[in-house]
Amino acid sequence: MSVDEKRRGRERTGPVVREEQVLEKIEAFRRRRPRLLEDVVTMAHGAGGKASAALVDAVFLEAFRNKELERRCDGAVLPLPSGESLAFSTDSFVVHPLRFPGGSIGHLAIHGTVNDLAVMGARPAWISAAFVIEEGFPIEQLRAIAADMAEAAKAADVEVVTGDTKVVSAGAADGLYITTAGVGLIPPGRELSGDRVRPGDRVLLSGTMGDHGAAVMLARGDLGIEGEIKSDTAPVNGLVEALLTAAPSTRWLRDPTRGGVGTVCNELAMETGLGVVLDEASLPVSPQVNGVCELLGIDPIYVANEGKVLAVVAPEETDAALAAMREHPLGRDAVVIGEITDRLSATVAVRTAFGGTRIVDMLVGDPLPRIC
Amino acid sequence: MSVDEKRRGRERTGPVVREEQVLEKIEAFRRRRPRLLEDVVTMAHGAGGKASAALVDAVFLEAFRNKELERRCDGAVLPLPSGESLAFSTDSFVVHPLRFPGGSIGHLAIHGTVNDLAVMGARPAWISAAFVIEEGFPIEQLRAIAADMAEAAKAADVEVVTGDTKVVSAGAADGLYITTAGVGLIPPGRELSGDRVRPGDRVLLSGTMGDHGAAVMLARGDLGIEGEIKSDTAPVNGLVEALLTAAPSTRWLRDPTRGGVGTVCNELAMETGLGVVLDEASLPVSPQVNGVCELLGIDPIYVANEGKVLAVVAPEETDAALAAMREHPLGRDAVVIGEITDRLSATVAVRTAFGGTRIVDMLVGDPLPRIC
Repeated sequence: MSVDEKRRGRERTGPVVREEQVLEKIEAFRRRRPRLLEDVVTMAHGAGGKASAALVDAVFLEAFRNKELERRCDGAVLPLPSGESLAFSTDSFVVHPLRFPGGSIGHLAIHGTVNDLAVMGARPAWISAAFVIEEGFPIEQLRAIAADMAEAAKAADVEVVTGDTKVVSAGAADGLYITTAGVGLIPPGRELSGDRVRPGDRVLLSGTMGDHGAAVMLARGDLGIEGEIKSDTAPVNGLVEALLTAAPSTRWLRDPTRGGVGTVCNELAMETGLGVVLDEASLPVSPQVNGVCELLGIDPIYVANEGKVLAVVAPEETDAALAAMREHPLGRDAVVIGEITDRLSATVAVRTAFGGTRIVDMLVGDPLPRIC
Repeated sequence: MSVDEKRRGRERTGPVVREEQVLEKIEAFRRRRPRLLEDVVTMAHGAGGKASAALVDAVFLEAFRNKELERRCDGAVLPLPSGESLAFSTDSFVVHPLRFPGGSIGHLAIHGTVNDLAVMGARPAWISAAFVIEEGFPIEQLRAIAADMAEAAKAADVEVVTGDTKVVSAGAADGLYITTAGVGLIPPGRELSGDRVRPGDRVLLSGTMGDHGAAVMLARGDLGIEGEIKSDTAPVNGLVEALLTAAPSTRWLRDPTRGGVGTVCNELAMETGLGVVLDEASLPVSPQVNGVCELLGIDPIYVANEGKVLAVVAPEETDAALAAMREHPLGRDAVVIGEITDRLSATVAVRTAFGGTRIVDMLVGDPLPRIC
């Protein structure tokens, strides 16, 4: 695939504008929290993008309003009487199919929650697992999924310590759904927050974009494409520890799952009020994933990852951060993909290869339903 | 309903035998952990009884084997570096219908997890909530359920601090499923465990049996019965605190949800290796619940509760425990329902009104699917 072809694949998201035009239009592009416009739940509400944020704000934040939910993170930081900080996170997994190249719902269920805790700066320790299973689901398949979870838990150095099992009639859970929650402790002194992000900070990504989403789409067999893409599903807690040891001033971490790097960068921009300028040429995508994305008409910047970390690091620690990530098996392809700027306000822009700049909004709609 | 009618309703479970015969047959009745015999998941695997225990043992315990899971509780007790003990529990809720007299899936989702933590001796503090929602589910209904959760959380003095939302296609979640997890701290010195149970200890129940299960069955409208039974769904953490203050030697607590008092007493018998002898005349059941159970051919001893506590207390603290429970709005009907004996081994028996004794096994099958 040529660079031109790649470029076309990526330009579907927003108009191409020149940087000075962007600056003039800051007010126009200033992000507001999206609003809920629908009367019924749609697939887009589960996609992790704009509609998901709107649903969470309008329904759940409205009902449960508290400081932790208002931080709009994938987990809560909870103060224990001893002065320790506990991280607590949950995710449901409804991936279809249950098994795909590189993993299964079992791996995802562990990795998803481990990774949410890890990017909060926590050391994931204990996992709960709740199963909603269809009547008629083969016990052997359930054993295999439990074995995948056990394998993933071992690799991530966490324990599945409690659980629940519910059974629903055939057809009412598409096989099975798994919900995990996890807790871990945040070592004293670690503080990862949008408040610490400064103009000039660098944005790092630990590897290629979109492998998980593309792998699951391909595994469904609907696309009529030969070839295999492997999901990147993996526990990033080891990678995060390596990064935070090498670059202790690291400001902010996130795992770009549903909604991809594009949506996570928008969350960063909204949380900080600053601009995130990404360099298109440096955004890592494998040729296979790029090919699938072109066929689907999706920018890989919005496609889910399940074993990647997006990090905002201090300029002076960039080299150390990059070196530490590249030394880790999960960060070999780590790159600087952009930087933080105060020349844009709460906006994500991509500098294209030919000098233009385009705005990257949050993911709208759900081009890839049920990929996690 | 006459006493004779009641008696008949309760005698479906086991053969009527004389106490001396029971003693002779200890070996025959000695409980073993049930074994998984099926190739596919059945509704019984979700009923909280014998099949559920077999599935958990054969699949999940086998895969994740660790000390916490082997305790076979509804939650884990986790040691923090500070010396504090954290309680951690999870439950999925798939109740049908979503709303029933006395509550909704929203109330259940909070109460279920709060109560699991409370009977571990913990003070529930933080809740996670993960939603699997069908495409097309009305936003207004979702708001109402979130409002129920918020109301329940406020009443239980817990906060919903983190969550997740997934959307599946219409029909693939029967409206919606909610999975909550919860964490709380166990005050130092509290130790509730089967190891502390002694012959002569009293078994207390905080109120009538089976209200929740009967309410949900009636709400489905399949039975053609007029009249309304209200679910007892409620957070028992306040009741447990009152009990543990009045009776600090309390040995063991459980909330008799799926599988009811009968199943929970079997868990107690298996955990302690001792006998649990219940007094039929003292088992509290409302006439309405008894009527529904007769129609369904189910012993109310197996019907789910969602706001009750079963407690094993020291003989000398029985009066104090009973008084404290009865002073609490959720424990007004608290009674002593039986006692612990070493004349039986890992067995639950009921002394009938006319001097016989029958064995109460764990719930077998699933007469009331999807009641939580």
